Amino acid sequence: MTIPSRKILVLLACKLKGPVPKALQFIYRLKEWVAIKSDSGDHTKWGEVETMLNMAAERIKKMGGKVELADAGTHQLPSGETVLLPPVILAEFAKDPKKATLCIYGHVDVQPAKMEDGWATDPFNLTEIKGNLYGRGATDNKGPVLAWLHAVESYQATKKEIPVNIKLIIEGLEEVGSYGLFKLIKKRRDSFFADVDFIVISDNVWATTTPALTYGTRGSSYFFIEGPKLDLHSGVYGGSIQEPMADLIALLGSLLDHTGKIQVVGVSDDVTPLTEDERKLYDNISFDLEEMKNVVGVKHFLQDTKEEVLMARWRYPSLSIHGVEGAFSDPGSKTIIPRKVTGKFSIRQVPNMDPPDVERKVKEHLEQVFSTLNSPNRLKVTATVGAKPWVANLQDSQYVAGQKAVKDVFGVEPEFIREGSTIPIAQTFQEETGKSVMMLPISGHDDGEHSQNEKISRYNYIEGTKLFAAYFYELSLLH
Amino acid sequence: MTIPSRKILVLLACKLKGPVPKALQFIYRLKEWVAIKSDSGDHTKWGEVETMLNMAAERIKKMGGKVELADAGTHQLPSGETVLLPPVILAEFAKDPKKATLCIYGHVDVQPAKMEDGWATDPFNLTEIKGNLYGRGATDNKGPVLAWLHAVESYQATKKEIPVNIKLIIEGLEEVGSYGLFKLIKKRRDSFFADVDFIVISDNVWATTTPALTYGTRGSSYFFIEGPKLDLHSGVYGGSIQEPMADLIALLGSLLDHTGKIQVVGVSDDVTPLTEDERKLYDNISFDLEEMKNVVGVKHFLQDTKEEVLMARWRYPSLSIHGVEGAFSDPGSKTIIPRKVTGKFSIRQVPNMDPPDVERKVKEHLEQVFSTLNSPNRLKVTATVGAKPWVANLQDSQYVAGQKAVKDVFGVEPEFIREGSTIPIAQTFQEETGKSVMMLPISGHDDGEHSQNEKISRYNYIEGTKLFAAYFYELSLLH
Repeated sequence: MTIPSRKILVLLACKLKGPVPKALQFIYRLKEWVAIKSDSGDHTKWGEVETMLNMAAERIKKMGGKVELADAGTHQLPSGETVLLPPVILAEFAKDPKKATLCIYGHVDVQPAKMEDGWATDPFNLTEIKGNLYGRGATDNKGPVLAWLHAVESYQATKKEIPVNIKLIIEGLEEVGSYGLFKLIKKRRDSFFADVDFIVISDNVWATTTPALTYGTRGSSYFFIEGPKLDLHSGVYGGSIQEPMADLIALLGSLLDHTGKIQVVGVSDDVTPLTEDERKLYDNISFDLEEMKNVVGVKHFLQDTKEEVLMARWRYPSLSIHGVEGAFSDPGSKTIIPRKVTGKFSIRQVPNMDPPDVERKVKEHLEQVFSTLNSPNRLKVTATVGAKPWVANLQDSQYVAGQKAVKDVFGVEPEFIREGSTIPIAQTFQEETGKSVMMLPISGHDDGEHSQNEKISRYNYIEGTKLFAAYFYELSLLH
Repeated sequence: MTIPSRKILVLLACKLKGPVPKALQFIYRLKEWVAIKSDSGDHTKWGEVETMLNMAAERIKKMGGKVELADAGTHQLPSGETVLLPPVILAEFAKDPKKATLCIYGHVDVQPAKMEDGWATDPFNLTEIKGNLYGRGATDNKGPVLAWLHAVESYQATKKEIPVNIKLIIEGLEEVGSYGLFKLIKKRRDSFFADVDFIVISDNVWATTTPALTYGTRGSSYFFIEGPKLDLHSGVYGGSIQEPMADLIALLGSLLDHTGKIQVVGVSDDVTPLTEDERKLYDNISFDLEEMKNVVGVKHFLQDTKEEVLMARWRYPSLSIHGVEGAFSDPGSKTIIPRKVTGKFSIRQVPNMDPPDVERKVKEHLEQVFSTLNSPNRLKVTATVGAKPWVANLQDSQYVAGQKAVKDVFGVEPEFIREGSTIPIAQTFQEETGKSVMMLPISGHDDGEHSQNEKISRYNYIEGTKLFAAYFYELSLLH
C-alpha cells in the first residue's frame, strides 16, 4: 500500500497543476480566511474569532473530518468580568488502528492590524506582490493551518489513503495566551489525546532561507515593578520628594549591563551547559550576520559571531525592558511627576531554568536594590506568564521523518533551530500528554509575524503544503 | 488728598456690606466668568477664549477703562497649520502723570475640566460649599483678575481717586504657553509699557495659610533622549541586540542619585550662594512638614527640615523624569522590544543658572554616558522650553508696599516665598520692559490650580480684593 515518497510528491504536483490549479484554490481559501478579522486582542470582538473557528470547522467537515467545538470554559478579565471563551476545535479523520496518529495544532486568531500602523496594503485583503501573499494571519497562523488541511485534501485527491491518522486541535485565542486551552488539554488527556502518538506545531518561522525543524523554545516570566500615590507638579515638588520614576529607573537600570548580561545573581546558574554535539548544530545554519544586521537595523549585535548571536537568541536567557505604565508617554512635553509607575520587563528562559525560581531571584534582587535607595515609596514586584522553556529530543521519530520530508521536497538538509520566543503550547503538550512534540515551520524568516505587512510567500505556502504531505508519508514509514 | 490706608479699608468694607452687598455681586461675577469654558488647550475651541476676553473687555469699559484688543499674531501648530491667535487685552484707566503707573497682568483662559475627571461639582458652575467657591478658573486666574477689577471698582465707589494709574494686560493663552504674548510685550515696550513703573502678577498661590509675596520662580529646560529603528520581538531578538530601552534606562539612571542630587557635572555651579539674610526668610514661613507629608502622600521628604525642603523646592535646581514615549505604556503585558524610545525629563533652574548653559552640560553628560555603553543605537538629545528662572529685589518699592498692604488687611507679616514652578512671564516682563515685577498671590495653598475641584475661598477672594485696594494705596505712598 505504501508508495515511494517521491511518487506522492509528483502526484501532488500534478494536482497542483490541474485545469483549475489547486495552488490558486489554496491561495483563494487563504484570502477568505484572512478576510475574517479574527483579532483576539479585544474580547468584545471574539464574535469574529468564533466566525473564523466555524469557517475552519466547516472546511474540515467538507473534507470528511469529524469536528467537535469543545467548550473552553470561562475567563476572568482584569476588570473582574467573567467571559465565555470561544470553543476549541477538536477534529479527527477516519481512523485506522494500524496507523500512527498525528495531532496537528494550529490557531486561527490574529494580532491586531490597522492600515494606519503602516501597512502597504489592506491587512484583511490578501494581496499578492512579487510572489508574496500579504495579509494579517497569512503566516501566523492561518496559512500553515490551511496548508495542513490542504496536505490532507491533496492526499485525498490522489485517491490514496493518508498513511497516518490525523487529528487537529485548532484554537482562537493563541495571541492572547490560549485561555482555557491548557485546562482542556489536561481534561482530554485520556480521551482525545489517548491514542495520539505525535503532536506537530507549525506556528513559528525558519531562521534563514533554509527549511528548518525547531527543537526548542525559550520560556518567559514577565515582571511588573510598581511605585506609589499622587501625581505631582514637578515645579512645585521637584527636588523635595524621592520620585517614584527615579526609583523605577534605578531598579530597571540594575537589571542589565551594557553587554546584555543579566545582573540578577544566580539567574543563569541552571542553564544547561553547551555540549560539543549541540555546538555543531550551529555550524550548519546559513545565517548571514551582515544581512541580519540590515534586517534588524543595527550596526552590530551584542555578540561578534554568527554562532554566538544565535545562541544568545536561542539557548541563553535574555532580559528585555518593555516599557513603563503610568508615566507620561504621549508626544510633547508635560512636567508631571507621575505617582504610580509600573515598569515592565521579561526574562526569556532556557532549560533548565525554572520560572518560579527565576521569579524568586528577581524579586530578591529588586528588593535588595530598592533597600539601597532608602525610598519612602512602595515596591511591589509581580511576575506573570511563568512559561517554561522547551527542548525536544532530536533522536525522536518526528525529527527523523521531518528531516527526510524536508529533503524530499526541498532537496536540502533542514537546519535544526530553536526559537528565542515563548510558545508555551509545545512544553504544555509534552508535559501534559507525554507525547512526542515537534515544531515544523513553513513560514519564512522575514514573514513579519506580529508586524506590519505580515506575509507568507507563495513558495513557502505551496511547498509547505507538499512538505506536510511528505511528512505524513515519512512518519508512517518510521512507525 | 491721600487718606490713611485704614480709612480706605473701612470705606471698602462698608461698600462690601451695602444693601446689595458688594461681596455677593463680586461672587456672582465670578460665577458668570467661570461659566465660560475658556479652556485654551484645544485651538478649535478658542472661540470660547475670545468670548471670555470680550466679556472681560466689556467689564473694563463699563468701569471707564479704555480697551484695546491687541492683535497677537499667528501661531504654527505641531500639525504645520497656522492659526490666528486670540487678541490680548491692553487697557488703561484715566491717567494722572503725577501718579505712579501699575500694570496688572492676568489671564482668563483655563485648564481643561470634565466631571468625569473626578469633580464633585460641575466645574463650570461656580458652587459655594463651606466658604469655598469651586469651579475651573476660580483661583487660576479668573478670581484674581476680577479681584483686581473689583479693587478698582471699590475705589471708584468710595468716590476717591485711585492713587495710582492702572493699566491691565490680560491674555487668553497662558495655560498653553502664552503664544504671541512675548512678541507683543517686546513690540509695545516703548508704547504701552513706556510709562509703566510696576508690573504685578497674581497667578500663583500662598505657600501656607499666611499671605505671601513671591520673589522668585524656577526656570525650566525639558529634555528628550531618543533611540532608533524597528520594533522587535523580545523572544526572537532578546539577548542579541543592545536594546534602545536598556540604553535609555542607563542614560536616565545617570541623571540623579537617590538623594535627588543631579549628577550632571557642573550643572549647579551657578546657583547663587545662600546668604544669611535669605536664610532668615525661611524661618518665618509657617510651613508644617508633617501636614505637607500627608498632603503629598509621602513618608518622608528628601530633606529633613522645613527650611531644607522649601529651599529644595524654591532655590535649588531639581530634575524630574516624566516618562518614556514609544515604549509599551498600556496596561497588561506585551513583549515588544520598542524601537524608538524617547525619555523625557526636565530640570528646574534657579538664579544664576542659564538654560542654554544647562542644556549644553546635560548634552555633554548624556553623550559621555552613552559613549561608555558602546551602543550601536543613535542618541539624539533635544532641549525645549528654556525658560529662565526669575528672582526679584526684595528692597524694591513693590515689596515694601506689598508687605504693608498685607499687614493692613490681614494684620500679619507676609511670608516671602518663591515658586518652584516656572512662570516665564515674570522674567519676560523684567527682561523686556526693565520694570519692577512682583508676584502678589491671593490664592490659597490648597486651591488645587490645574487639579480637580479647583476653588478659591470666599475669604481669599474678598480679602484679596481688599489687599489689592490697599496695595494701590501703599504703593502710591512710596512713589
